[in-house]
Amino acid sequence: MKPKSQIVNLPVYQPGKPIEEVKRELGLEQVIKLASNENPYGSSPAVLEAITRELANVSLYPDGSAVELTGVLAKHLGVERSNIIFGCGSDEIIALITRAFFLPGDETVMADQTFSVYKSNADIEGAVTIEVPLKDGTHDLSSMLAQINDRTKVVWVCNPNNPTGTIISEQELTSFMDRVPAHVMVVLDEAYYEFVTDADYPQSISLLERYPNLVILRTFSKIYGLASLRIGYGIARPEVIDLINRVREPFNTSRFGQAAATAALLDQKFVQECAELNASERDFLQNEFTRLGLPYFASQGNFIMVDLDMPSKDAFQSLLKQGIIVRPGFQVYPTYIRVSVGTPEQNRAFVKALENTLAEKAITSP
Amino acid sequence: MKPKSQIVNLPVYQPGKPIEEVKRELGLEQVIKLASNENPYGSSPAVLEAITRELANVSLYPDGSAVELTGVLAKHLGVERSNIIFGCGSDEIIALITRAFFLPGDETVMADQTFSVYKSNADIEGAVTIEVPLKDGTHDLSSMLAQINDRTKVVWVCNPNNPTGTIISEQELTSFMDRVPAHVMVVLDEAYYEFVTDADYPQSISLLERYPNLVILRTFSKIYGLASLRIGYGIARPEVIDLINRVREPFNTSRFGQAAATAALLDQKFVQECAELNASERDFLQNEFTRLGLPYFASQGNFIMVDLDMPSKDAFQSLLKQGIIVRPGFQVYPTYIRVSVGTPEQNRAFVKALENTLAEKAITSP
Repeated sequence: MKPKSQIVNLPVYQPGKPIEEVKRELGLEQVIKLASNENPYGSSPAVLEAITRELANVSLYPDGSAVELTGVLAKHLGVERSNIIFGCGSDEIIALITRAFFLPGDETVMADQTFSVYKSNADIEGAVTIEVPLKDGTHDLSSMLAQINDRTKVVWVCNPNNPTGTIISEQELTSFMDRVPAHVMVVLDEAYYEFVTDADYPQSISLLERYPNLVILRTFSKIYGLASLRIGYGIARPEVIDLINRVREPFNTSRFGQAAATAALLDQKFVQECAELNASERDFLQNEFTRLGLPYFASQGNFIMVDLDMPSKDAFQSLLKQGIIVRPGFQVYPTYIRVSVGTPEQNRAFVKALENTLAEKAITSP
Repeated sequence: MKPKSQIVNLPVYQPGKPIEEVKRELGLEQVIKLASNENPYGSSPAVLEAITRELANVSLYPDGSAVELTGVLAKHLGVERSNIIFGCGSDEIIALITRAFFLPGDETVMADQTFSVYKSNADIEGAVTIEVPLKDGTHDLSSMLAQINDRTKVVWVCNPNNPTGTIISEQELTSFMDRVPAHVMVVLDEAYYEFVTDADYPQSISLLERYPNLVILRTFSKIYGLASLRIGYGIARPEVIDLINRVREPFNTSRFGQAAATAALLDQKFVQECAELNASERDFLQNEFTRLGLPYFASQGNFIMVDLDMPSKDAFQSLLKQGIIVRPGFQVYPTYIRVSVGTPEQNRAFVKALENTLAEKAITSP
């Protein structure tokens, strides 16, 4: 039984410790997880009602074409139904794109520090990943453009970029798109779209008319607070959606995910409130980092990447002992951690713990 | 933007009409769906409680390694945790196997009328499918064996077979496995395992020790009544599970799916009751088919394939007008429909409608 040679050395997902286990092991009463960019305010109450209503249908397959949800989302976005495809998180749309388009030896271009799922899927398909260094934590579109050749199938632009939180502007995007050859798909991952407050951020959907090679990814896992239910989506021209659809399993999203996403979309007041709370707490954290003399990337997401000037695994352990879980281990930025923007209480607890960590470091440093 | 050539002509999933729409269009008050082999008794009440408990965590990512569910399932099956992988339905395990193992030009062997997802995934990977005719609706293992060569990667054996419901015995399976070369994976799809009453059915898990190339698929979508939540699993030797895991997205099952499956596993009384009800109602339907002079394949699943001696699409339409949805359109058996075993009330309503359909046919036939 011989697997594809390229998958043999792929990393297997290493499970994080369940919060309950962390509490037990470290004797902590409370643990605050600021590691996965989840919505700290939960989800709209309408979501919980929708899930409860769906309990009567637990034994029934979902609607494989998500008719109701597609209709509500199309209306919300101002697009046609044929512009939309749903996935088991936007992760799955990434996998579907690579599965539909990549042949071994094809090339794909992405930033050197961005969402890891682009590269892992390219690896599975035997495609060659060209990683272009971020510039000040931001996509360097002109250098990415220079890497495009006849073998390039897809360029990935994560905007805001995970993990740095930086954005490229509409002007930068259109200037880039104008130069990308027609045979290259540009996947614009906007998982954190709803958190952006910068007026220069692209209104990408309106660009679909101009750029037939543009695919936009968004998700219900972040501001909508449905990470548990695995539902994200892609927006593109119908002929592109149609191709991606050919490799989609019909029942790739759950009945509960569809019902919850429909209810979540219809409560935009919740979304707006979360965006406002996130923006003011993001400001709070960034001001605290400035006060503490810590460099950070100015973020438009619900997370911030900050330089603690120490190995990030050490910072992680120090914070963990104080009951705070953050995300360490970014290859290009080994002294940075990524911290999710939490509730006001969580953020203040994090800053307090961070001050302890920095004080410890000052003592133990030579 | 050039997709892989083999996906361009793949069929796109054609959505079925929602039941509410069927009711409206045909002016029906009640519609009985016996088309998707769902559990007509719903799920264990413990499942509904588990889902309700999980409402507090809707905004949190699932446990990517499903620690709790894996532990409960391993204990239930008498295997190790490392023998198990979960998927978004067992459909996804099929997709993951093809994505991990198939290179363009590899060959794969399956029955000519079996679960369609094996072939669609082989097509996506550019593998060549060798379809071996069923014999009396049953896998013809010796003819399948004869099709294995150096290029063969996977043989698919659906047991009970969907759509015919027939099984192969443990003796037939081991005799086959003894002759399958070590480089060929045999995927034994046991989605309907819990409905089988025939004592000759293989106890496949105990065969894993003897056959390192065996992969067993099961699901929570059928007898456990969790089709809405998309969760199935694979059982194999740890080294095989490890390879499949390399192409799995970490959050491929939902928090609700994991919680529901855990609760469902712990209520085996519900499973046993459903199996008993299914067996007696399967007998009822088969006896009725005999009474009506209709040939059928003796089924060990929760569905029966029966020959109405008329184009199946016509039978489908005639039954639909009477408020009964069944599954038509099987290429190898164009005059057969597949009907799920429903509740006693549903089955009696189906038989009544079927008698009308047959009577109509008798009048309109030349």
